[in-house]
Amino acid sequence: MGLNRADSLFRQGQYSVAPVFPAGLGFEVAGVIEAVGEGVDEFRAGQAVSVVPGFNLLDYPMHGEAVLAPVNAVVAHPEQLSFEQAASAWMQYITAYGGLVEIANTQPGDTVVISAASSSVGLAAIQIARRAGAQAVALTRTGTKRQQLLDAGADVVIATTEEDVVARIRDLTGGRGARVVFDPVGGATLATSIEAAAQEAILVIYGVLDFSPATVSVMDVLLKRLTIRGFGVAELASDSRRLGPAVDYVRKGIVAGDLVPVIDKVFPLEDFADAHRYLERNDQVGKIVVAVP
Amino acid sequence: MGLNRADSLFRQGQYSVAPVFPAGLGFEVAGVIEAVGEGVDEFRAGQAVSVVPGFNLLDYPMHGEAVLAPVNAVVAHPEQLSFEQAASAWMQYITAYGGLVEIANTQPGDTVVISAASSSVGLAAIQIARRAGAQAVALTRTGTKRQQLLDAGADVVIATTEEDVVARIRDLTGGRGARVVFDPVGGATLATSIEAAAQEAILVIYGVLDFSPATVSVMDVLLKRLTIRGFGVAELASDSRRLGPAVDYVRKGIVAGDLVPVIDKVFPLEDFADAHRYLERNDQVGKIVVAVP
Repeated sequence: MGLNRADSLFRQGQYSVAPVFPAGLGFEVAGVIEAVGEGVDEFRAGQAVSVVPGFNLLDYPMHGEAVLAPVNAVVAHPEQLSFEQAASAWMQYITAYGGLVEIANTQPGDTVVISAASSSVGLAAIQIARRAGAQAVALTRTGTKRQQLLDAGADVVIATTEEDVVARIRDLTGGRGARVVFDPVGGATLATSIEAAAQEAILVIYGVLDFSPATVSVMDVLLKRLTIRGFGVAELASDSRRLGPAVDYVRKGIVAGDLVPVIDKVFPLEDFADAHRYLERNDQVGKIVVAVP
Repeated sequence: MGLNRADSLFRQGQYSVAPVFPAGLGFEVAGVIEAVGEGVDEFRAGQAVSVVPGFNLLDYPMHGEAVLAPVNAVVAHPEQLSFEQAASAWMQYITAYGGLVEIANTQPGDTVVISAASSSVGLAAIQIARRAGAQAVALTRTGTKRQQLLDAGADVVIATTEEDVVARIRDLTGGRGARVVFDPVGGATLATSIEAAAQEAILVIYGVLDFSPATVSVMDVLLKRLTIRGFGVAELASDSRRLGPAVDYVRKGIVAGDLVPVIDKVFPLEDFADAHRYLERNDQVGKIVVAVP
């Protein structure tokens, strides 16, 4: 079972969907099929599978020893992944693929700025930006995770509370600014992203960790011809025409060894609450996983 | 000679490009060719032409009795247009086409919200939205221009200082909100546009009349999966692959009678300064033109 920021927000009543009790948690899981529903031919009992995030938490909570999953969200993952990796692979890679490849059309030579880079989606974005041939610039609050982010594949790491983010990004791009910004923070970060963006850049906003209202220079949006695009993985995952190519891309990347899920820590099932507390401390680099015995 | 908001901003030193003296004004003009440059075969002296806005004001100011125009900005306009109409046609229709057709891909059944609707681009956008089969909702500050906007083709007119804009737009769209917003105001208007936007809507920002910083709900951008896109006509007009189809579209619309440039008032050349003052009073509905005898 992979933990996701959305689990924590949902548990605290801050997610976009309010819990209806009795409620469950969990978008990310891998395991062995116990039984298939009527009319399902694609899978059989005993098969090792994982889920892509194309369902509503109110309908299909995925954290449990035995869970129900809608067939369109079930995939047989590449054999080289452990259950821990498979549980954590799809949400992060499909999100990063959707933002960077499908929407932003990241190309070789682009500079991609990745905020909250030590989150699982952030790390996935670093790997996907590099797979697309781009320069991956990882933003993190302090220097403490710098080496881990470089090890995870970031070309450059910027500590946002210690460095001048806009100046650094301009330096790295010959003054042009970043062609792609991939951001789950919102709030005050948006103004910085707009300032650090190149002409005709795209800012893909895939989350809101900072609830403060964002102040935007519309003049910059106009003069730089920026695109600001809100994106949630459900948009892609609920559309089979878009999900198919996304799953293929990620599967090929995993098989090629370009996409390697980074696990921060594995908790035993009895420490599930500790795993949530650990997630909320924001000290992790990569995925927090809970193992079912 | 057509007057443009950019002329006024440039004259006051508030445009994105600062004047370099001696400086001229004017993006919009129609007239008769006096002479062609070396190597120009497409046109000949004596031909009636007008210009599309694909040049820099510092290089080619267009207001004068005799002016130089770069050949790639010169077009032979449809014969049914008067010089006054031809002078005012291209900037407004290419801008509205770029925003509504090329970028927002406006389709039959869409609702298009047009701010500053009584400006020439606003009126052009009403005509282009309708040509695309969409519902054109015109925003104007007070009710005084309501009838003129309805006469110009608006399906609905909303007076922004007298009515609840968001509630009206929701009513008009069965609660869904507008699929396309086309806005040259920026500032505080952006928050309203975001609120009035439908799921997966696009907001095309093509100007900034309100310099106050815009406060944006990033959560709405995310949950509605909005696209906010800065657009300037020069982006399209400087790219011959994009300008060709745009000119074709507008030419066909004019010939079909769907696109009819609305002239508010024609000033004689000796009242050029009065024409600028009149533009800045914002009382016009449509284009302000200065006629050269």
